[in-house]
Amino acid sequence: MMKVAFQGEPGAYSEQAVFGYFGSVLTEPCQTFDDVFEAVHAGVCQSGLIPIENSLAGSIHQNYDLLLRHQLHIRGEYFLRVRHCLIGFPGTPKDQIQRVISHPQALGQCAGYLRSLGVKTEPVYDTAGSVKILKASGERNLAAIASRRAAELYEMEILQEGIEDNPENYTRFLEIAPQPVSVLENAKTSIVFTLKNQPGALFKALSVFALRDIDLTKIESRPLAGKPWEYLFYIDFLGSPEQESVQRALSHLDEYALLLRVLGAYPRFKVV
Amino acid sequence: MMKVAFQGEPGAYSEQAVFGYFGSVLTEPCQTFDDVFEAVHAGVCQSGLIPIENSLAGSIHQNYDLLLRHQLHIRGEYFLRVRHCLIGFPGTPKDQIQRVISHPQALGQCAGYLRSLGVKTEPVYDTAGSVKILKASGERNLAAIASRRAAELYEMEILQEGIEDNPENYTRFLEIAPQPVSVLENAKTSIVFTLKNQPGALFKALSVFALRDIDLTKIESRPLAGKPWEYLFYIDFLGSPEQESVQRALSHLDEYALLLRVLGAYPRFKVV
Repeated sequence: MMKVAFQGEPGAYSEQAVFGYFGSVLTEPCQTFDDVFEAVHAGVCQSGLIPIENSLAGSIHQNYDLLLRHQLHIRGEYFLRVRHCLIGFPGTPKDQIQRVISHPQALGQCAGYLRSLGVKTEPVYDTAGSVKILKASGERNLAAIASRRAAELYEMEILQEGIEDNPENYTRFLEIAPQPVSVLENAKTSIVFTLKNQPGALFKALSVFALRDIDLTKIESRPLAGKPWEYLFYIDFLGSPEQESVQRALSHLDEYALLLRVLGAYPRFKVV
Repeated sequence: MMKVAFQGEPGAYSEQAVFGYFGSVLTEPCQTFDDVFEAVHAGVCQSGLIPIENSLAGSIHQNYDLLLRHQLHIRGEYFLRVRHCLIGFPGTPKDQIQRVISHPQALGQCAGYLRSLGVKTEPVYDTAGSVKILKASGERNLAAIASRRAAELYEMEILQEGIEDNPENYTRFLEIAPQPVSVLENAKTSIVFTLKNQPGALFKALSVFALRDIDLTKIESRPLAGKPWEYLFYIDFLGSPEQESVQRALSHLDEYALLLRVLGAYPRFKVV
């Protein structure tokens, strides 16, 4: 059976994404994103699934850096709708809750709801970890915010589901593996490049796509480690290097960029 | 005496930046970045200082969103060299430390050092907060990672300073206040804009700067809240709207952008 690495405790949103994307597989919880890449390199897992961007919080930059440092390929993308749950001991009435713990980001995304509940909040390091802490505490006026799966795993009860203030809360995940896939229709391609630091440099780089009507879906700049305030650019665009126009755009960009790497071409995920 | 709002516990890196940038002022610790903006709005503080980007970890996206939501002006920038300290009880020999606590990002930035020390690590929600926890614990084989100032504030001892794996660890801060400044020489300007979602849109937008040899120092894209996968663009460039070429570029961009706002023009900070 296939085994997939993800970062987090069992019950993390990333694990939920693994099941949503791959279906029924074995999962390997890893402490850090680094460990996810290592597990795939070492062959402990056939694939890894890493979060790359959240529609509210923005990009997970560390994973951009890891994509560059490792020689793995992006083979696919997946969008997970994040639905936060208020989780407590079975049978606890909601109005008995006095204190809520979770990762600061989850607390922030439910700030309006928590204010209306009139509870105190306390940050902990992980969403699924907060359910573990809840269970160990034995406190019936304490609740955690985490995924449905985390509640089930620790045999706690979902007191309310979908408590996030903004329902447009999606996380985009990327599948990474040692071998690339071949894709032509409805493809997306992810690349990374660096440019000479001079006026108009990015403008010239983007011209290779604009001239060929290639649609960019994402642009991200990252500081270049060891050279503060010089940047790497990460771009996603629609199309595959198996198309001639894309091939030409990339060879045109290669003339001009100091570094250019295709991180992967893969089927575009359609949010339903 | 001037009072400046920052996010974090007393002793946070942000508070250190306040003293580095403003000199001797009163500080107002705030629980969230939101609270920093509110404190300046409400006139509790004359200015706020917010982190916007770290050379290793990337942008602090939430602050980009808050800049857009509030009508404050950027008045200046400051770069803080982040030097992590291993902090323990006074008189503790380093080899007695068995467990180290801090914010996950600080633990990550010192991962190599911590491995060589052969200690266990445990994430907590805040760097300065980890020193508070250390002090309350009374445990002499426990250490925290935080700023020099946090060690002093809680009367703990710095067992070793500068333990970060990569010395190129800088955080860029922005001063925000109700009134803009006037600046002409050595200026930097920060703007935000949105574009119609069509091929070549960003290319056309950047042309207004490229045609006038205006040097971009930063480009950042942010998801547009409520419209997943449409983007806001944040750009920093060298120059001030008090220069004619910059004025022309902005009026040219305004013809084309759906939204355009100048967040501030301010003196450029020179890293020494």
